[in-house]
Amino acid sequence: MTLRVIGLDELRSVVTPDLVFAAVRSALIAHAEGQTQVPLPMVLDFPKASGDCHVKAGYVEGSPHFTVKIASTFASVNNGLMLVVDATTGEPAAVLADEGRLTAWRTAAAGALITDAMAPAEAREVLVVGTGDQARLQAIWLTHLRPGLKFQIWGRRPAAVTDLVETLQAAGVQARPVTESAASCVTTTTPATRPLPIELFGGAQHITGVGTDMPGKGELPPGLFAGATVVTDDHEQCLDHGDFGNAVRAGVIADGIDLSVGAVLRDGFTRRTDRSIADLTGLGVQDAATASAVIAALGG
Amino acid sequence: MTLRVIGLDELRSVVTPDLVFAAVRSALIAHAEGQTQVPLPMVLDFPKASGDCHVKAGYVEGSPHFTVKIASTFASVNNGLMLVVDATTGEPAAVLADEGRLTAWRTAAAGALITDAMAPAEAREVLVVGTGDQARLQAIWLTHLRPGLKFQIWGRRPAAVTDLVETLQAAGVQARPVTESAASCVTTTTPATRPLPIELFGGAQHITGVGTDMPGKGELPPGLFAGATVVTDDHEQCLDHGDFGNAVRAGVIADGIDLSVGAVLRDGFTRRTDRSIADLTGLGVQDAATASAVIAALGG
Repeated sequence: MTLRVIGLDELRSVVTPDLVFAAVRSALIAHAEGQTQVPLPMVLDFPKASGDCHVKAGYVEGSPHFTVKIASTFASVNNGLMLVVDATTGEPAAVLADEGRLTAWRTAAAGALITDAMAPAEAREVLVVGTGDQARLQAIWLTHLRPGLKFQIWGRRPAAVTDLVETLQAAGVQARPVTESAASCVTTTTPATRPLPIELFGGAQHITGVGTDMPGKGELPPGLFAGATVVTDDHEQCLDHGDFGNAVRAGVIADGIDLSVGAVLRDGFTRRTDRSIADLTGLGVQDAATASAVIAALGG
Repeated sequence: MTLRVIGLDELRSVVTPDLVFAAVRSALIAHAEGQTQVPLPMVLDFPKASGDCHVKAGYVEGSPHFTVKIASTFASVNNGLMLVVDATTGEPAAVLADEGRLTAWRTAAAGALITDAMAPAEAREVLVVGTGDQARLQAIWLTHLRPGLKFQIWGRRPAAVTDLVETLQAAGVQARPVTESAASCVTTTTPATRPLPIELFGGAQHITGVGTDMPGKGELPPGLFAGATVVTDDHEQCLDHGDFGNAVRAGVIADGIDLSVGAVLRDGFTRRTDRSIADLTGLGVQDAATASAVIAALGG
């Protein structure tokens, strides 16, 4: 048996933000319409190695492939790959040995898409909370959708904030460090297990949270959800291990009030409350759709 | 990135029943002792293609690797592969492109091990119900543990029974077709969604069921569980989608009465009831232990 292994260089040769935006957008809309299969993820923990591994699977009905994705983080280093399987025969079609980059890109795409859809049109500056890879990507990918946007960077380690600001500026993205903020749009990208300082959200009309992706994590202060319009990428998943679920368990909101990210991407968003929150936990169908788009771009 | 892909020919060069028996036995014992991680499996369904796909992950604490296994069945054809991941770094170590054979072998090993441990010592003939690949393997692998054992083969299609009997005889295993049986030991290997004829179990002191591995399946008549000693490879998994769970939901037995397969393999079995039943749903740790043994046999 020969199994095609597609490495990161080959992936980089065909993956563009436009390709990932289109795949992720269609996947999230299909998910909102019930045209997907997304089993509950599996998690393995390796505390002695400061590691964990998430396994996510996904299928968009009618697609040529489904995927099973392994995403590991050991000592803060991300790794992983995606297995692409033929959905008509069950035969493994390819391994995307992406070292975790496809997950980073599809997460960036989902965050940027929903932020663009829900942030006030007049927003000129976005606060990005966190200084890791996903903080950098959220700023860069959102700039693709809203050119000219400026970014404030907040983090607990000043040196990391400075590094990220310089990296973004070098990439042509306008960014500056902040220690406080009144931004009308906030994107949070941290692995926090305790809520971020509530002062960061004082001016926030829209908040997109991408960091809370497993049980035990939580970056948004539950109180922010009071009276807010909430959208989730998947109701059950966000209830199980998203910031939405944390707010429900804190008794701040009812568990049935969320709308779906896919419906907002399809139908647009009209603001009716002072604050909106998008809770993204990441879906296997984003992986599946991105992988199928990559395979197609590589010539099938 | 280079990712080692180990194909079926290379696997066959090192995999022996002894290697798989040792790996599976140690994995099941570790599982009984709480020294494993086995997330609940993921299932995807492809009804238009008569297909389904199971994803199982597993880790034996202290092992060098964990595995994520994809097992698909489309139009009755099994396929799949195992991803072997370094448990200290999270880096993908190898893909075992085994076309589903490692799953078949570790299933055969678990069935044969627990049947050998629990079947009456004086049993001379074992009834195998079913005529598929796993029926053949259960007979062959049990013969490794109990040389000289004879097999009765029962199936719904007479031609398939004849084929399997001839195949087993050609492999040096004593087998004959039956349409009824009073065997004291029965192994069921079917994908049945309705219980098998209860008459097949009239003489059964021990029954090993390996066919019921997902919700909606069920091959053992629930009534068989009344008063029986029940062992499960995993309590939660068998309760969720094993014959044990079907019997619990039918109200025949309480959900807490099962013992673990691993404890029986470690400590041995003393018969105290007229009938014993081993319900095997298949564990990701069997895959993990088998994969680690294969990697070691191939030189790491």
